Amino acid sequence: MASHHIVLFGLLALSFSLVLATDNNPLFDICVPDPKSPGSKVTLLNAQQIPGLNSLGISFARIDFQPGGINPLHLHPRGSEILTVIEGTLEVGFVTSSPDYRLFTKVLQKGDVFVFPAGLVHYQKNPEHVPAVAYASLNSQNPGSILLANTAFGSTPKINTDILVKTFLLDKKVIRHGQQKF
Amino acid sequence: MASHHIVLFGLLALSFSLVLATDNNPLFDICVPDPKSPGSKVTLLNAQQIPGLNSLGISFARIDFQPGGINPLHLHPRGSEILTVIEGTLEVGFVTSSPDYRLFTKVLQKGDVFVFPAGLVHYQKNPEHVPAVAYASLNSQNPGSILLANTAFGSTPKINTDILVKTFLLDKKVIRHGQQKF
Amino acid sequence: MASHHIVLFGLLALSFSLVLATDNNPLFDICVPDPKSPGSKVTLLNAQQIPGLNSLGISFARIDFQPGGINPLHLHPRGSEILTVIEGTLEVGFVTSSPDYRLFTKVLQKGDVFVFPAGLVHYQKNPEHVPAVAYASLNSQNPGSILLANTAFGSTPKINTDILVKTFLLDKKVIRHGQQKF
Amino acid sequence: MASHHIVLFGLLALSFSLVLATDNNPLFDICVPDPKSPGSKVTLLNAQQIPGLNSLGISFARIDFQPGGINPLHLHPRGSEILTVIEGTLEVGFVTSSPDYRLFTKVLQKGDVFVFPAGLVHYQKNPEHVPAVAYASLNSQNPGSILLANTAFGSTPKINTDILVKTFLLDKKVIRHGQQKF
Amino acid sequence: MASHHIVLFGLLALSFSLVLATDNNPLFDICVPDPKSPGSKVTLLNAQQIPGLNSLGISFARIDFQPGGINPLHLHPRGSEILTVIEGTLEVGFVTSSPDYRLFTKVLQKGDVFVFPAGLVHYQKNPEHVPAVAYASLNSQNPGSILLANTAFGSTPKINTDILVKTFLLDKKVIRHGQQKF
Amino acid sequence: MASHHIVLFGLLALSFSLVLATDNNPLFDICVPDPKSPGSKVTLLNAQQIPGLNSLGISFARIDFQPGGINPLHLHPRGSEILTVIEGTLEVGFVTSSPDYRLFTKVLQKGDVFVFPAGLVHYQKNPEHVPAVAYASLNSQNPGSILLANTAFGSTPKINTDILVKTFLLDKKVIRHGQQKF
Repeated sequence: MASHHIVLFGLLALSFSLVLATDNNPLFDICVPDPKSPGSKVTLLNAQQIPGLNSLGISFARIDFQPGGINPLHLHPRGSEILTVIEGTLEVGFVTSSPDYRLFTKVLQKGDVFVFPAGLVHYQKNPEHVPAVAYASLNSQNPGSILLANTAFGSTPKINTDILVKTFLLDKKVIRHGQQKF
Repeated sequence: MASHHIVLFGLLALSFSLVLATDNNPLFDICVPDPKSPGSKVTLLNAQQIPGLNSLGISFARIDFQPGGINPLHLHPRGSEILTVIEGTLEVGFVTSSPDYRLFTKVLQKGDVFVFPAGLVHYQKNPEHVPAVAYASLNSQNPGSILLANTAFGSTPKINTDILVKTFLLDKKVIRHGQQKF
Repeated sequence: MASHHIVLFGLLALSFSLVLATDNNPLFDICVPDPKSPGSKVTLLNAQQIPGLNSLGISFARIDFQPGGINPLHLHPRGSEILTVIEGTLEVGFVTSSPDYRLFTKVLQKGDVFVFPAGLVHYQKNPEHVPAVAYASLNSQNPGSILLANTAFGSTPKINTDILVKTFLLDKKVIRHGQQKF
Repeated sequence: MASHHIVLFGLLALSFSLVLATDNNPLFDICVPDPKSPGSKVTLLNAQQIPGLNSLGISFARIDFQPGGINPLHLHPRGSEILTVIEGTLEVGFVTSSPDYRLFTKVLQKGDVFVFPAGLVHYQKNPEHVPAVAYASLNSQNPGSILLANTAFGSTPKINTDILVKTFLLDKKVIRHGQQKF
Repeated sequence: MASHHIVLFGLLALSFSLVLATDNNPLFDICVPDPKSPGSKVTLLNAQQIPGLNSLGISFARIDFQPGGINPLHLHPRGSEILTVIEGTLEVGFVTSSPDYRLFTKVLQKGDVFVFPAGLVHYQKNPEHVPAVAYASLNSQNPGSILLANTAFGSTPKINTDILVKTFLLDKKVIRHGQQKF
Repeated sequence: MASHHIVLFGLLALSFSLVLATDNNPLFDICVPDPKSPGSKVTLLNAQQIPGLNSLGISFARIDFQPGGINPLHLHPRGSEILTVIEGTLEVGFVTSSPDYRLFTKVLQKGDVFVFPAGLVHYQKNPEHVPAVAYASLNSQNPGSILLANTAFGSTPKINTDILVKTFLLDKKVIRHGQQKF
């Protein structure tokens, strides 16, 4: 799978406002490598990037994993996600909500499908020494994405240390150390 | 892409009714070759097959195309579809609703993404001499599927010939010929 | 029933943006005779024509049938329809989705009511030698309408012949003949 | 328009649970003359009476008006209503919500259409000396109906008189008189 | 509870259009004493007043009751209400829809919670000789509010007397008396 | 505010399945002190506890804060929250989603109102030396609740340490220390 861009064609908002391209070039090509992301890259197509998705209630993401790469703990506040492994192997997991906090994990091979319910915290990991690729669809045109650590440690401005200390029950020194990473 | 089954793991209806399997075997494996389908095979996962999808508002399908194979004119009455080409090349198209009936077509390569708005008639075709594979997600747990020809010519019981004659403006003999094919 | 126009009064988008007319004249009067329609005329009121319907989730259509007239196979991608016979007699039918494709038909007299589920293909026919009239309401302010034959044979541009041949399993010559009618 | 019953055919909940009758007799025939109704009779079809309407989001009512008859002030808590005059003439009106309380009225002739937004108080009156008939569709399978006077004066048990006195700013004697009517 | 204003902070429409104030002053302070309200004052925050509530589907009201004060019969056309007593005691009630018109009443103490289903007519009364305060949340950003008496007697223009006479089955003189109060 | 239980009366699923209690006793009284919660106690009423809330789309929670108490970082996967301070003072904050991760904070006094958008991570803290009380309503009958730390460190079974290390960019030793606290 050499092509690392995502191309989205043929969208229209209902049947009257056309945004379709008429040539073979990609409408756009977003590849935002995140230096903090430990070994994965998420390329998302949603209604903010593509006005034609406005009324269709669906969006799409491609996730590239380096060997051993991780898409760390995160959630989508406005959408369920259905994920398919396109290349390689993925270990995936999600945690149910209070009061159970049950963790469900699975090792997915190429062609396997998995569903992450809306708003639940989840992750994916490539456990092998070769790259992996997954495609994800979400049932919202603007599902949103929240990385747990960026929210807790990397917000602008920072969350007060005492809130984090009492959230994670960790030393203030450890919390400050975490904040410096983001 | 040798594996031709679809495996769906890890579903749960909200966070309290668990239906997850705990072993590595696929929960189910549906491969319904349709003898009338001209060169394509659709394998669908929806909420009727998997109770856990009940409250998640999303479903999934894998479509395998033989060389030159076609997924003929059809629509989904309850869901938009986002399609990704996994292997090979696909020519896709959909037609907008009355009064425009605009046809939009595109040739998609591996990795390309396309969206079919809810309820609109569309098709996919593999124009090459090698197989193609696509994955599709729909933003409903029960999107439904309606093949135009099966509806018009293959219903049980058959639609009266005069309705079909006046729908398609074709000779009664042609209509009867079409009905015999389904 | 001599009056052949439809008049829609008294709409307002929520309770603050008023679009009400203050005189007795009709707000608009749409009568779009379709030369290709085999004996029926659909007059539709939806939110594109009437901004006040924008937030109300409902639309309306009047269908006039000549003796023997047919409203041919079609569907509404975004709405269920409830139909009432106002004058004369109507034979109606719809086909369920895959894999059953069950046809349900009924002969309706004046005053009878019938429901067509959202997105399913249906038709109406006046089997008598006198005109018939029906009123239809749909639970969407923009339900859309898709005539099967216009979509298959009459789009702009035309759908490739081989797609149609494999959709309907008919000869290329027959398909081209059908395309010339639209 | 001699037939005073309503017949509803052809319902099915999605495409798998069929409730269709196979003969020509009406599935049911509800005619509930309300002795307190001042000259009108509402015959409603909703999802409680017809399980097939469960997933279709639409319901239907026929309203028969005697000469001078009134369908008094009422509202539907869960649905917008689109009304068509089938026979005779109707004066209709609705009042917007706080703080405007604007009254919109219109005289409708046979064939005219009017929309009452969800939850707003409205009425219909036959101002002529011949009967009138209207058909109404609502965009909910269970829209509900609330007559203002039955709610205020005719509940079980009765609302305390002081609440009614302070609601309507009328004498306690008048309120008690009103309560005795219901 | 000396502070009689309501302050609403921190709203944002999704996560990209920020409307947050950055100082400690209240964003707004609405106190609309209604001279006709018999002893209660409703202060409502909804999406018309606060653009940030537009996509959040929730609104809020504070209700202050004088000793013996009443929030008279009213309904919200687009939202269920959950009410909490903050100070004092409240007698509350609502009436179900046709055909039952069941009245449910309850005496609530400080800290008690009660739910009024969407679109149903309800009231609150302070039965004690000290003030009472309640907070209400509604699951719509624009739930609307309709006072029964203002709708029936106080619309602009007035509803015709004969409609009111046949709605409430009261003398024309009484109806005109009621209309003069609003 | 001496009474520390929550009482919910008067619920009914639509207008026909009644679950109302007829006496003055509370329907239920849930007070689940969480030994790990750093100084706050959440008492939630939702549709799982009260069947009558099933169709009403709203739920309620009372939150009691000890002096200096914190309701630590958490989110509700299926609902926006509107919070009112009933007693004391609260410092509140929430973080927007990727890519901004903007933190919004505010100090709320008694009577102030704040909204937390659906699915976003937020917290509340009592900064004073006296107790504080807040009431929260959510626009879902089953909004769910996810504490960040319980999800990351306290799930059953535990999330693999390497996932947490790469999520929070902290030492494995620190992560294991965090896991032991939950």
